[in-house]
Amino acid sequence: MHSVEELAARLPEGRVVTDPDVIERYGHDEAEWAPYEPPLAVLRPRSAEEVRTMVRWCAEHRVPVIARGAGTGLSGGANATRDSVVLSFERMNAVLEIDPLERVAVVQPGVVNEDLRTACAAYGLWYPPDPASAPWSTIGGNVATNAGGLCCVKYGVTRDYVLGMQIVTGTGDLVRLGRRTAKGVAGYDLAGLLVGSEGTLGIITEITVRLRPRRPAERTVAGYFDSIVDAGRAVEAVVGSEVIPSALELIDRHCLRAVDDWKKLGLSVDAEVVLLGRVDVAGSVGEADAETMRACFEKSGATWSAVSTDETESEALFQARRLAYPAVERLGPVLTEDICVPVRAVPAMLARIEQIAQHHDTVIANIAHAGDGNLHPLLITSHDDEAARARAQAAFADIIDAALDFGGTVTGEHGIGLLKMPGLARELDPVAMAMHHNIKQALDPLGILNPGKVIPASLPD
Amino acid sequence: MHSVEELAARLPEGRVVTDPDVIERYGHDEAEWAPYEPPLAVLRPRSAEEVRTMVRWCAEHRVPVIARGAGTGLSGGANATRDSVVLSFERMNAVLEIDPLERVAVVQPGVVNEDLRTACAAYGLWYPPDPASAPWSTIGGNVATNAGGLCCVKYGVTRDYVLGMQIVTGTGDLVRLGRRTAKGVAGYDLAGLLVGSEGTLGIITEITVRLRPRRPAERTVAGYFDSIVDAGRAVEAVVGSEVIPSALELIDRHCLRAVDDWKKLGLSVDAEVVLLGRVDVAGSVGEADAETMRACFEKSGATWSAVSTDETESEALFQARRLAYPAVERLGPVLTEDICVPVRAVPAMLARIEQIAQHHDTVIANIAHAGDGNLHPLLITSHDDEAARARAQAAFADIIDAALDFGGTVTGEHGIGLLKMPGLARELDPVAMAMHHNIKQALDPLGILNPGKVIPASLPD
Repeated sequence: MHSVEELAARLPEGRVVTDPDVIERYGHDEAEWAPYEPPLAVLRPRSAEEVRTMVRWCAEHRVPVIARGAGTGLSGGANATRDSVVLSFERMNAVLEIDPLERVAVVQPGVVNEDLRTACAAYGLWYPPDPASAPWSTIGGNVATNAGGLCCVKYGVTRDYVLGMQIVTGTGDLVRLGRRTAKGVAGYDLAGLLVGSEGTLGIITEITVRLRPRRPAERTVAGYFDSIVDAGRAVEAVVGSEVIPSALELIDRHCLRAVDDWKKLGLSVDAEVVLLGRVDVAGSVGEADAETMRACFEKSGATWSAVSTDETESEALFQARRLAYPAVERLGPVLTEDICVPVRAVPAMLARIEQIAQHHDTVIANIAHAGDGNLHPLLITSHDDEAARARAQAAFADIIDAALDFGGTVTGEHGIGLLKMPGLARELDPVAMAMHHNIKQALDPLGILNPGKVIPASLPD
Repeated sequence: MHSVEELAARLPEGRVVTDPDVIERYGHDEAEWAPYEPPLAVLRPRSAEEVRTMVRWCAEHRVPVIARGAGTGLSGGANATRDSVVLSFERMNAVLEIDPLERVAVVQPGVVNEDLRTACAAYGLWYPPDPASAPWSTIGGNVATNAGGLCCVKYGVTRDYVLGMQIVTGTGDLVRLGRRTAKGVAGYDLAGLLVGSEGTLGIITEITVRLRPRRPAERTVAGYFDSIVDAGRAVEAVVGSEVIPSALELIDRHCLRAVDDWKKLGLSVDAEVVLLGRVDVAGSVGEADAETMRACFEKSGATWSAVSTDETESEALFQARRLAYPAVERLGPVLTEDICVPVRAVPAMLARIEQIAQHHDTVIANIAHAGDGNLHPLLITSHDDEAARARAQAAFADIIDAALDFGGTVTGEHGIGLLKMPGLARELDPVAMAMHHNIKQALDPLGILNPGKVIPASLPD
């Protein structure tokens, strides 16, 4: 019989926490209604060697180990089970190196996204991936979920910035994967495979990321629309132009009203839907791009549009986007969807979401990285209303079905975790699912790395 | 006892070729001195279903199957063995779809890189990866090796453009991996894992790639230098500036002389080393970027430098770069290296290569994607001179050692194939090598997919 005390004895003081109040807080991420139980213990390593000691103990005793960044996930990927340990990277939060010539940074997994950005800015450099959780979420968590964000539409996702990493394997070995040179094709892209694997194929203990030079100031283009269909057409027009926006965000009337009810910005008086685009090309070309984007808005039926280069004015416009999620959360528990469809299907998908909302008598607000076709329907329910919760969950499943019908995916950037496991089983061919199981078995033969997440612990017969 | 006639009987006419003269031509790629033998047969499928039939037969009879594009590889990755079949995609060369709004193309693996570019250009779109082999090499081969090229320094490599694919697995199943939406994190990145796997993890039968809008015309910046160290410093200066070049190529005196001896361009009279940079930003910003690049050349000791926007003039400047490899090949068999080092190490690495050339009495010419630190030392020998060949091979090994010493990789863009297997074993940690074997076993349990390439057929004890 094992006990976590035995593990604690192998480590310096303070690494193994069993205080029930503390443990409770580490039991889950921010996914609404994803199941969890308090873990056996919370582990707080200070080095990769300590992580290895922890994973070896887990391997010896077949104890599931769940890696955790800041717990801002929205799919339940970091949720604990009663017999598991949660390995929190909060004390491995150092930016180890920034190399301004090679444009790489080496970080511990617990570094907060915005802290890395700030550190890079001091060198005139920029780490692009910008999930909405950037002020809190960690690079380790971002890598584990292949986090996206607003600027992905131009600059790609976390995957596009990860060059290499150090991990502890499912058998407790410490190993480096990937590289730090600009190019490299030596062997299989195992570092890439680990990105987005949600802690099921290895525990990431260090990450090497590519950086970009800082970019020119952005111009913001705002458009107000009377209908979601017009806004969808505007998105299509921008994507079909030669402009590459550095952001193209949609906020619907439910979100605008929720923001207005909270912050009195008066947005919902003027618009049913707001589109916010950005362009970060310098000089007259950038100016022309912004005007092209505005023209796309206008010809698609915008009731008002404007270009702004003023930082304060732009920030005010983007405030509605940033406030949307917390504003909607004030209305009740929010089940956050994360589908991605072809851009062409955005208007039809938004219309389908409205139908699904009516059919299941559920309020569904929409924010979207519209330029990527990545929609975040927010299903709003009530506290202590089991029937409303059941209706929201049925709507959630219908939205996933619709996304697949439109040639989309069940998750654009939040990951599978627990909430999207049924969706993944529908999205993937059974052969692809079997390949997932074979890969899992190859890299985690003992089945201790976040078992039961992403794919079922065993393959269905 | 199997026979390829049995396979031929399962397929339409003309799919299985056993003519010895034909087979001989399909036995190897362009890697100098990598071992090969004629295969049992050459298979020329016309559909994914036919590929499946072929791989199933190979699985039944444990016949190794070696996928082949145009055979332009430089590592021996497509080389045959006596008991194998070569599966050539020359008849699966259709561009199946170009979607200008979603900016994706769906192609069969046998499509030639430049044919895809031409097809995209008709829609105002651009497929960036541009290996020097682009006029001949196929997208399937580019994906299998994760091919790079000149514009990688700004636009990334093949991996960055592959969204999804259809493959036949090692057990003869046809399956889709990846996606065609802009974002997507549904399950493990198996499509990404297949990129660069050199036919050892699956046979790619269809590929979905991302496209970009066409880009502005390029400005070319040329610089002549008296020494390789000055040129290396200029590369470092450009990379350290805020300019992102769309190409930054180096050509040394050996290449310049070889080009002059052939084409009488007179380049080697004026320069020991030529740097060619490009900038593809439009308008005054692009103009300023080109001037910044020229200033970097000048302050690093360029003896002459100039900016050109004239297409004809630019092409003439880049002609030396394109002619370098064929010009050097005129001098004798060429063993092509492909290391990638940190940009900071480029001058020191070039100096080390000169020492290695002297030490092994081997002429080593250099062309380099200098902005990426990706160097292609070209080891020139003589026909029928075994001693010279042995010296070149020793120099090849020493260059690999040096690249690893400088924190680089044994292959930047050509792949492991056969020639870099000893290098890979030195680059990878034994744990990472074991992970490679586990992945190979997971996806090719019968060991029929290009066995003995990239990693040894069995793990050393």
